[in-house]
Amino acid sequence: MNPDPRDTKNSPDVRIRPVHRDDRSRIQEVIVSSGNFTPVEIAVAMELVDEALTRGALSGYIVAVLEEAGHEPPVQGYVCYGLTPLTDGVYDLYWIVVDPASQGKGFGRRLLDFVEKDVVRRGGRMLLIETSSQQTYEATIRFYQRSGYELAARIKNFYRVGDDKLVFSKELR
Amino acid sequence: MNPDPRDTKNSPDVRIRPVHRDDRSRIQEVIVSSGNFTPVEIAVAMELVDEALTRGALSGYIVAVLEEAGHEPPVQGYVCYGLTPLTDGVYDLYWIVVDPASQGKGFGRRLLDFVEKDVVRRGGRMLLIETSSQQTYEATIRFYQRSGYELAARIKNFYRVGDDKLVFSKELR
Repeated sequence: MNPDPRDTKNSPDVRIRPVHRDDRSRIQEVIVSSGNFTPVEIAVAMELVDEALTRGALSGYIVAVLEEAGHEPPVQGYVCYGLTPLTDGVYDLYWIVVDPASQGKGFGRRLLDFVEKDVVRRGGRMLLIETSSQQTYEATIRFYQRSGYELAARIKNFYRVGDDKLVFSKELR
Repeated sequence: MNPDPRDTKNSPDVRIRPVHRDDRSRIQEVIVSSGNFTPVEIAVAMELVDEALTRGALSGYIVAVLEEAGHEPPVQGYVCYGLTPLTDGVYDLYWIVVDPASQGKGFGRRLLDFVEKDVVRRGGRMLLIETSSQQTYEATIRFYQRSGYELAARIKNFYRVGDDKLVFSKELR
């Protein structure tokens, strides 16, 4: 009724497309600029991007980038997700990152919508998102909750003592 | 006080050692003979063994086999475990399998003791075990509980609808 002016859902200026090899350094830049990840986490995130670029569908990882027209470089965020091994139709969202300079434009929501629709198209029935209970993830957690995700599990002291793993889930059909 | 006659803890006839390339086919035989795994699960289990054989410590997987002297072939079970990526000292027990012909001899307990001690030696503080809520895993679940593991999380309908993922955990120090 009162569309959020930042809502990009129908914006012709934004598109989400499969990753290309040329996107690699820009993706790394986006991850680093977010300021939310340690060097080891950045290395793991890039390892999955590289797996997807090198082995394609065989890697088990699907990577897509969000482009905003008129920006240079156009890539403002990316997602990495895939079928969880040994499950029947459960997908994991491994990484979702938006350039902080583009936050507040609904790009995270746009990327998550894209993943959910793609998972359903691939026959998936559930999307899981693992995240940390650390305070720096508070906004991220609220974003998942607003997007219909429920806390499915908590593993205490997982990342380190005092930093739990939270698993959010959403049934997609 | 009343030692279980099946307890092999101090048996000189049993030893646990790192995997060798020659163990590959026997490990596969043990997994298949257990009757508990689907072809896809068997393929995934062997993929981890192959990773450990090919890439060693770089693979992130540690594989060890249990040998019983006087048996031909001597290998009666195996374990596969490793440091959980992005955690500070949490290890995952990925696979633990004993040949059904050797069950009831305490070999599962022996393998699990070995893993726990090795994890502590490597500086680990927690061991996680993921398993299925399916009825065929009931004895396995009781085994983990008897061994001091507590249910840390349950993800409903994870493997398939009606088949939950259970995560057991034990603090090791």
